[in-house]
Amino acid sequence: MLSFEAFEEKTIKRETLFTGKIIEVALDEVALPMGGTAKRELVFHPGGVGIVAITPAEKMLFVRQFRKPLERVILEIPAGKIDPGEGSHPEVTGARELEEETGYRPQKMTHLASMYLSPGFANEMLHLYLAEGLEKVENPRAMDEDEVLEVYELTLDEALERMKTGEICDAKTIYAIQYWQLALAKGRECHG
Amino acid sequence: MLSFEAFEEKTIKRETLFTGKIIEVALDEVALPMGGTAKRELVFHPGGVGIVAITPAEKMLFVRQFRKPLERVILEIPAGKIDPGEGSHPEVTGARELEEETGYRPQKMTHLASMYLSPGFANEMLHLYLAEGLEKVENPRAMDEDEVLEVYELTLDEALERMKTGEICDAKTIYAIQYWQLALAKGRECHG
Repeated sequence: MLSFEAFEEKTIKRETLFTGKIIEVALDEVALPMGGTAKRELVFHPGGVGIVAITPAEKMLFVRQFRKPLERVILEIPAGKIDPGEGSHPEVTGARELEEETGYRPQKMTHLASMYLSPGFANEMLHLYLAEGLEKVENPRAMDEDEVLEVYELTLDEALERMKTGEICDAKTIYAIQYWQLALAKGRECHG
Repeated sequence: MLSFEAFEEKTIKRETLFTGKIIEVALDEVALPMGGTAKRELVFHPGGVGIVAITPAEKMLFVRQFRKPLERVILEIPAGKIDPGEGSHPEVTGARELEEETGYRPQKMTHLASMYLSPGFANEMLHLYLAEGLEKVENPRAMDEDEVLEVYELTLDEALERMKTGEICDAKTIYAIQYWQLALAKGRECHG
């Protein structure tokens, strides 16, 4: 196993190109471990939370929304960015987003995984939680003003069908469906 | 189901902030479907390919490398960006990256999934392929000059252990391990 030093690319110079409300973009000049230099294009992002929420009727919650970078409407699990101050409590972000987007409040949140989405250029980390004990809230917290979305409750077969048609097409949602399939497959394994 | 028009955010003005070798960054002012305007921070990326490669000895191939946005070394499945001209043949990119990074050439590539990684701000799509019939190449194609990496062949249990320790921590690699678990679980299901 090579040491960290054999890999590390030390920043010689960083140029911050853009500081937005969500992302920060930088261009680094780095010293390569084998000598020489290279440029690295970097996007910094506060991270987010995705919620795997299965209702008592064995349906998973999805939201249908427009995604500007794709110029299309897709179906995803409920998710949201981590706001300043929530960084150390992603389950708080998760419960808030779930309620805002779907009107359900979870009694229990269990951490499933944390994953970098595009480690080649971005530091965005997504935390995934299983939301259990879902209860419909009478007066749910309001969504962000610029969000339009539709809530769906789908069975596993319906969700797999939406993957085939391409409506479900993002990494966190595909993870959630695989998680569900694995949980069910474990229940069906032969123990005899 | 709401119509596309109920969701669409039309671009009023686009400001291109950065055009790099890998990403392009833009700031859009959009017209919201319910009236009013909002800003959207956007990253455009050519997309990539990730390879789920399992050797005849039932081990999966991983590469250990430094990721500048994270300032750390992580363990991932072999992957690479789609080069101009390869856009319509991601399996070509995949086979090339697999050979460059691991020295294995696949006899067969099967498409598993295509997924947006961060649809909230980026249009990057990752295509995942299963590489079968792996053969060691005597003189594999050379890697990009600025890449340092170490190849690992791990059993499923070893890979799950590396997820626990956090060395495996990115979405495509977690997808690959879940895919492997599901394929094995399906083989173990009760059919009686």
